[in-house]
Amino acid sequence: MITKNKMICENLDRASDGELTFAGVRLSTLAARYGTPLYLYDEDRIRERCRTYLTAIRENFGEGAKALYASKAACFKRLYEIMREEGMGIDVVSSGEIYTAKRAGYPLERAYFHSNNKTDADIVYAMDNGVGYFVVDSTDELLAIDEIARERGIRQRVLLRITPGIDPHTYAAVATGKVDSKFGSAIETGQADEITALALSLGGIELRGFHCHVGSQVFDSDVYLRAAEVMLDFVANIYRTKGYLADELDIGGGYGVRYIESQPEIDIAANIKEVADFMKSYAASLGIALPAVAFEPGRSIVADAGLTVYTVGSVKRIPGYKSYVSVDGGMADNPRFALYGSPYTILPVMHDLPENSDEIEICSVVGRCCESGDIIQENVPVPRNIKRGDLIACLTTGAYHYSMASNYNRLPKPPIVMLNGGRDYVAVRRESFEDLSAQEV
Amino acid sequence: MITKNKMICENLDRASDGELTFAGVRLSTLAARYGTPLYLYDEDRIRERCRTYLTAIRENFGEGAKALYASKAACFKRLYEIMREEGMGIDVVSSGEIYTAKRAGYPLERAYFHSNNKTDADIVYAMDNGVGYFVVDSTDELLAIDEIARERGIRQRVLLRITPGIDPHTYAAVATGKVDSKFGSAIETGQADEITALALSLGGIELRGFHCHVGSQVFDSDVYLRAAEVMLDFVANIYRTKGYLADELDIGGGYGVRYIESQPEIDIAANIKEVADFMKSYAASLGIALPAVAFEPGRSIVADAGLTVYTVGSVKRIPGYKSYVSVDGGMADNPRFALYGSPYTILPVMHDLPENSDEIEICSVVGRCCESGDIIQENVPVPRNIKRGDLIACLTTGAYHYSMASNYNRLPKPPIVMLNGGRDYVAVRRESFEDLSAQEV
Repeated sequence: MITKNKMICENLDRASDGELTFAGVRLSTLAARYGTPLYLYDEDRIRERCRTYLTAIRENFGEGAKALYASKAACFKRLYEIMREEGMGIDVVSSGEIYTAKRAGYPLERAYFHSNNKTDADIVYAMDNGVGYFVVDSTDELLAIDEIARERGIRQRVLLRITPGIDPHTYAAVATGKVDSKFGSAIETGQADEITALALSLGGIELRGFHCHVGSQVFDSDVYLRAAEVMLDFVANIYRTKGYLADELDIGGGYGVRYIESQPEIDIAANIKEVADFMKSYAASLGIALPAVAFEPGRSIVADAGLTVYTVGSVKRIPGYKSYVSVDGGMADNPRFALYGSPYTILPVMHDLPENSDEIEICSVVGRCCESGDIIQENVPVPRNIKRGDLIACLTTGAYHYSMASNYNRLPKPPIVMLNGGRDYVAVRRESFEDLSAQEV
Repeated sequence: MITKNKMICENLDRASDGELTFAGVRLSTLAARYGTPLYLYDEDRIRERCRTYLTAIRENFGEGAKALYASKAACFKRLYEIMREEGMGIDVVSSGEIYTAKRAGYPLERAYFHSNNKTDADIVYAMDNGVGYFVVDSTDELLAIDEIARERGIRQRVLLRITPGIDPHTYAAVATGKVDSKFGSAIETGQADEITALALSLGGIELRGFHCHVGSQVFDSDVYLRAAEVMLDFVANIYRTKGYLADELDIGGGYGVRYIESQPEIDIAANIKEVADFMKSYAASLGIALPAVAFEPGRSIVADAGLTVYTVGSVKRIPGYKSYVSVDGGMADNPRFALYGSPYTILPVMHDLPENSDEIEICSVVGRCCESGDIIQENVPVPRNIKRGDLIACLTTGAYHYSMASNYNRLPKPPIVMLNGGRDYVAVRRESFEDLSAQEV
């Protein structure tokens, strides 16, 4: 029994002749204009998601609270312009992200510099460019930041990354908040206490508070409540034992996004209200003022604002085995199936799937890279008459596609075309072969 | 019991003061000159491996036989210059690889154009640039090549990619030669026969023979003998049934490379002799002339000619759990652990591991990307006194590192520095932040 995929985000629709539209624009028009593979972004959807976070955070936590866009999900100049215009904070993880934000005129005093390994060169670059906050991952890094800050005669504002130790066996989707992690300092081992004491003792450091991040693609709101509880206990304990009350508490990102119909759509506003209600009452019960809370949405800002258009290259049916539809992209522009086996919804562009299930077949949609693992998705229903030259769309590709793209097989990265009120414009042009060779001496 | 890693390739050594050398050059000198992360290639080792293949193939198969370097393992201009100078053929999988080979002055009439999905634009580009051979993956592609060739009034020389149907359950390491594959046409289903008949009937196609590829990182020479047997049976059967005798038989690549001490080092010359002895006698027993045989080594040409130097950023010990050493690269320059869990040998640069095992600890060497899966290797013995600023080397990184590198976390790709007789020179300079933004409008 084959179930037709439905539209999983409201920016998807079909025109009266059956053609798939995204943000109100026909995909065949865009494919003809820009070629394929083609990354599209729905600018209105990005802005709408930013506003959902900002409104919910301000309404529930008050004016000091922040929404920081996690740049690693997708990083290019135009996106930072949008973040600047929407009043979003940003989190950055490298000098390259800082450089890109700066080119967009983004006010870097609102940026938080993450990463488990900031080099001395990164620290200098971030300070040169006035990055507001460093989220410090380890003692080694804290000491390096202190030394460089003191050389400059400044006190650098920092948050400390803390691992709350939420058991990943209880919360299977959660990977980065556990004690055994390359990130942060664990409460359980006493190392979070130690790094806090060290930060408070250093002349180049202005401790502003704490950060944690519980994981990615989390649908269970209980995980956030539990993380908030652990972190508030920690804040209260530090206040009791060291007399330091955190100004800020950044509880990270990770809200799940709907890639396939069976996944839920998270009501962000309702979730934030639930977290806020809990944190306000729990802080009160601990007898501490609630620090200014920050959230760090990345995927949930951009994922379903993105879509990739591919052209079919060959259709191969192996009797007794499987059918393969090869497209003109693959793990170079979307490594997430190869890396994680991630689910995606793939739809034919010119017409919806036939009503009659006899006219539908199940295939593997595979990429063009010379590698068996270059698969975009298994078990995809496609029309039986699919053929070379047809367009197909892979939905929900706004996060961790362009940012993770490689040039494997010497494939140029696709362009990024933005859609806004029926208008389309290029934010990042397609890489040329000359670009690929630009570093060759 | 901790066993010290030994040198796994003869281009590695330690200077009298204990410093690791690669191709006779001290790594600290190169790290100081070029920064880290840093990709190094031992040019002499690349040339030596080419000669090993070329000599063994000519001695055992005669003058018509070929060694084709599989570009996807590593593709940049200087490498194609070396391939040209050594008299290697090449296999390419995209217009980008063709472009790069052309820039190196590589004679493209010696190139074989692979890939499971050549677009019409690729076909035109390859023909415009005089690529000698197309290795045709599917009927769709064969028809497209025929049409474009006929428009130009030429007959394009092609090999047909055949899936020999070697059971991957018998040969666990083998993935791409099985019937259920996105690559090629299967003998078992009759589709290999069908596409051969079609190729022989098309006016724009000059059928030159057949190709197969059994898999990657294969140590079991029996796999090649079995593939050769199946393919020769197929060649003989096509001759009997269709009167067409293949001129060429390309049996692909895949010879395994030693990443860690427990893996064997394959004697390429002995293996090729074994395959040649078998193929000559088996072809004779079938009553056919042996076609000109081609091999397609990629990894085994460049892998152990490569090494990556990293700088340690932080050392994190989590009591009761694990220790983490973070370096200034990661899955952006080496995605192979994240993709496949691939094994690597990692060595401290300035001194060998201490003799006393109490002075050694086991850690995870992790990258700098904001992702839990950004691990370079687990269970790596390092000196207990390892610290921020120390250099470490990841061995055997010449294949599928630069070619698969991404800019995840907006990290610039490392430079490629070539080593030759104690001399070092830049083949690919480090990407700049400006390069990363070059396509931004």
